[in-house]
Amino acid sequence: MSKLPETVFFANLSAKTGTPLKDQLYSQLRKAVLTGKLAPGTRLPASRQLAAQHSVSRNTILAAYEQMVAEGYMETRQGAGTYVSTQVPDYFTEPAQTKPQQGSATQAMPTVSKNTYPDFTLRSGAPALDQFPLDLWARLTSSAWRTAGAHTLMHDDLAGYAPLRRAIASYLKASRSVEAGPDQILIFSGLQQGFKIAAECLLAKGDAVILENPGYHGMAQVAATLQQETLFTAVDNNGAIPPTTTKRGMLVISPSRQYPLGMTMPLHRRLKLLNWAQETSSYILEDDYDSEFRYSGRPLNSLQGIDGGKHVIYGGTFSKSVFPALRLGYLVVPAGLVPKFITHRAAVDSYPSIVPQIALASFMESGHFARHIRKLRKTHARRKHIFTNAFPTYLGAYLDLEPSDAGLHMVARLKASLLPEICTRHDPVPPDVSIAKLAQNIGIGAFALSGTYRYQKTGNTHSDGQTSGVELRTHHQGILLGFANLPDDQIEPLLARFAQALEKKIN
Amino acid sequence: MSKLPETVFFANLSAKTGTPLKDQLYSQLRKAVLTGKLAPGTRLPASRQLAAQHSVSRNTILAAYEQMVAEGYMETRQGAGTYVSTQVPDYFTEPAQTKPQQGSATQAMPTVSKNTYPDFTLRSGAPALDQFPLDLWARLTSSAWRTAGAHTLMHDDLAGYAPLRRAIASYLKASRSVEAGPDQILIFSGLQQGFKIAAECLLAKGDAVILENPGYHGMAQVAATLQQETLFTAVDNNGAIPPTTTKRGMLVISPSRQYPLGMTMPLHRRLKLLNWAQETSSYILEDDYDSEFRYSGRPLNSLQGIDGGKHVIYGGTFSKSVFPALRLGYLVVPAGLVPKFITHRAAVDSYPSIVPQIALASFMESGHFARHIRKLRKTHARRKHIFTNAFPTYLGAYLDLEPSDAGLHMVARLKASLLPEICTRHDPVPPDVSIAKLAQNIGIGAFALSGTYRYQKTGNTHSDGQTSGVELRTHHQGILLGFANLPDDQIEPLLARFAQALEKKIN
Repeated sequence: MSKLPETVFFANLSAKTGTPLKDQLYSQLRKAVLTGKLAPGTRLPASRQLAAQHSVSRNTILAAYEQMVAEGYMETRQGAGTYVSTQVPDYFTEPAQTKPQQGSATQAMPTVSKNTYPDFTLRSGAPALDQFPLDLWARLTSSAWRTAGAHTLMHDDLAGYAPLRRAIASYLKASRSVEAGPDQILIFSGLQQGFKIAAECLLAKGDAVILENPGYHGMAQVAATLQQETLFTAVDNNGAIPPTTTKRGMLVISPSRQYPLGMTMPLHRRLKLLNWAQETSSYILEDDYDSEFRYSGRPLNSLQGIDGGKHVIYGGTFSKSVFPALRLGYLVVPAGLVPKFITHRAAVDSYPSIVPQIALASFMESGHFARHIRKLRKTHARRKHIFTNAFPTYLGAYLDLEPSDAGLHMVARLKASLLPEICTRHDPVPPDVSIAKLAQNIGIGAFALSGTYRYQKTGNTHSDGQTSGVELRTHHQGILLGFANLPDDQIEPLLARFAQALEKKIN
Repeated sequence: MSKLPETVFFANLSAKTGTPLKDQLYSQLRKAVLTGKLAPGTRLPASRQLAAQHSVSRNTILAAYEQMVAEGYMETRQGAGTYVSTQVPDYFTEPAQTKPQQGSATQAMPTVSKNTYPDFTLRSGAPALDQFPLDLWARLTSSAWRTAGAHTLMHDDLAGYAPLRRAIASYLKASRSVEAGPDQILIFSGLQQGFKIAAECLLAKGDAVILENPGYHGMAQVAATLQQETLFTAVDNNGAIPPTTTKRGMLVISPSRQYPLGMTMPLHRRLKLLNWAQETSSYILEDDYDSEFRYSGRPLNSLQGIDGGKHVIYGGTFSKSVFPALRLGYLVVPAGLVPKFITHRAAVDSYPSIVPQIALASFMESGHFARHIRKLRKTHARRKHIFTNAFPTYLGAYLDLEPSDAGLHMVARLKASLLPEICTRHDPVPPDVSIAKLAQNIGIGAFALSGTYRYQKTGNTHSDGQTSGVELRTHHQGILLGFANLPDDQIEPLLARFAQALEKKIN
């Protein structure tokens, strides 16, 4: 392994604060890693050199480095120095700090707060949050509470707030052809919680969880906390390919609009997948994460509606149709499995707070939810049009925007010519990750496409080879960009700034 | 195994509804089991007999029985007939229906709704919900939303809403001597979720979870979903006895007020437990579930404060100090472990909805939380006085109320003379479970003390012997009764009704 050049790192160490110098250094190093200031793979200065720079003992530096290594933030490579770990979870390294930290750098408590995210505009997956009727929401919430009683305070319906479940059932029937009574709907704090509980409930030892590849990294994170083997199935032009494994398991797919690539699964593929589920006695978790937003044509009916609720668990979220911090989603569970789910969820989490459930039920019952979705659909379509028109003008030299007629993000592929220009031999970071970070630095909530792939071997169903990260394949190089969460007139100027930043990096 | 007498069961079957008869029967049987109408261990009528009674084919009966057996609601015993399973989760069987079911008994969808709970008064563990300032809460919530922005809608601080964490940190410092900065506080939807995430985060293969015996059944339910071996440690007059195991693990205890027995752990026992944790490199989860309510003397400082946040994870809940359906709790995590917790919780559940977090932060920051606790403490003390005074008058012949100076429930032991009177040889249900059910039938949220014990063997640390339920030990026979959640003038009349019901059952 050849030595990479060292990064430069200056700590702000003061003997006067009462905090030991090694703790100060540790805390600042950690912050630098968590905020992405020290990128994964970066080589740290030699301890001797850093000690000299700061006029402190080398033991101080070594102690801080050791703690960082022990906690997995850094790693030593035999004879080659100390590096920022490439295994630091994306969650911490992806969002770069866009605001200066408050307070001095020597404040003792390291922060893992994510207060930087909300400033990200054009964030992949975010709806038009500026269109959310905050005043109306405040009024509805307040009036729901004024009419609540001790009944509400002691609410104990483990499936979720009944009026909310009824509202969801009728919405799903009308809009997604999902066949389910309110008693089959379980409210969760999100689809990741739903997936974890479904897997823990339904899978036995030896069963597998099977994820799309590429796919939503959140589901892969859940899978890593389960006891089941995680397998992956590749995606072709028709979406997820039926798994070749004959194992019983739970397959998580996004047939309405594959994440991240965006294709809609045609009926023949849906039937093949249902057939697989039947033959292997498996379950399919249908992740219908942004089906509310289709800008042309009609959506296909849900897989759940075709299956009739035998093998399919349908999952939806309000993160995109209401707002992400609401943290409410739901599963539609086959009727016979409901008691099992409720017993399990009672054990691990009871039910989500009644407070957002009341508010959302009132928002849905009053018709405001349906109106809001219609309004969002129009706003999103308009912003997508502006975004798509402006994109080639500013970024056409570097990125090819793939067409899409639904959802809240688009995929922009890196032009082949860009790859060598931006990716140096010494840079351990894939080029699309560099570009996504560059976008984040100017406030664009972009994600690297390569981050949604998680395997090594080709072929169909295969085990997760997590040992050395993502292979650099040209057709995996792209970035996911949202188009919805920025006022119309700010979209073009932001794309122009992105293009400038890219040019500056290249030249 | 001797044959028990069969129960009588009449189904309401109609050929006109379009639902197959076997489905109608299955649905009604399930409802009867879930609502406790058919108690665990009850012997079902022979299929031939039930078929004759209803003039349907025996195959119809067999098909419904088979489905019930397949789903675990019933079990067959070789040559002895079909029985309601003794393994049906307590969650379904404990709350008896106090309201008539709406609609006809042949409605297809089985309900597992728990809409009956809210009607329970004097519920063990419930605070005085009639004292909650609903109007104020509505006003605070509404104004918090009016001043929110897109920032709030996209909130992405995985530790929880920062103003709430700050408010909790200062509350804990002042009231519980818990030493922790806001960055060590993680908001969860409750302590059970907190326990599950802590265990999944910190325990490795071969580590154990160790629970108090008797203890809170919710924690045992969580333990059953973990991959770790569950051990139990007995409770003496000083609370949980230090585990004899030398295994590394996570011990869950309630030192401020042992659940359910109520003793406060003295300092010498606390030190012994901390010593055990240090020696075995284990963690202690300090469940401080109702420490807000102490009616005489001063509470001991938290275990976390003594430990200094090395081995102890401190957990609190707002279920008792605000209201149960708020579903917000928190863990105070040693600083070095925070990133690990956040990564894990990001994977499995992101964070609880911002909606209750905003409301609670506003409730705390405005000083209303502290005022509300003071008001509750007075109300609870007054109701406890009324309850304790009236109890012997009405129930002294059957139950001995144990003194207690804190919390939200008291333990009433069954008088020895009562045991044979209420417990017949044919009754597979422990006498205190019968009495708790009887109380529930008249709207009292009582729990059986024997349900908080979960073992077979005596001795100190021992494996869970879940095979045949709870042993009938006299000193495990009692009921847990709340005293807080009923207006002052209704307490005595309800105790009188309870006494009448008991008398009627005995005579």
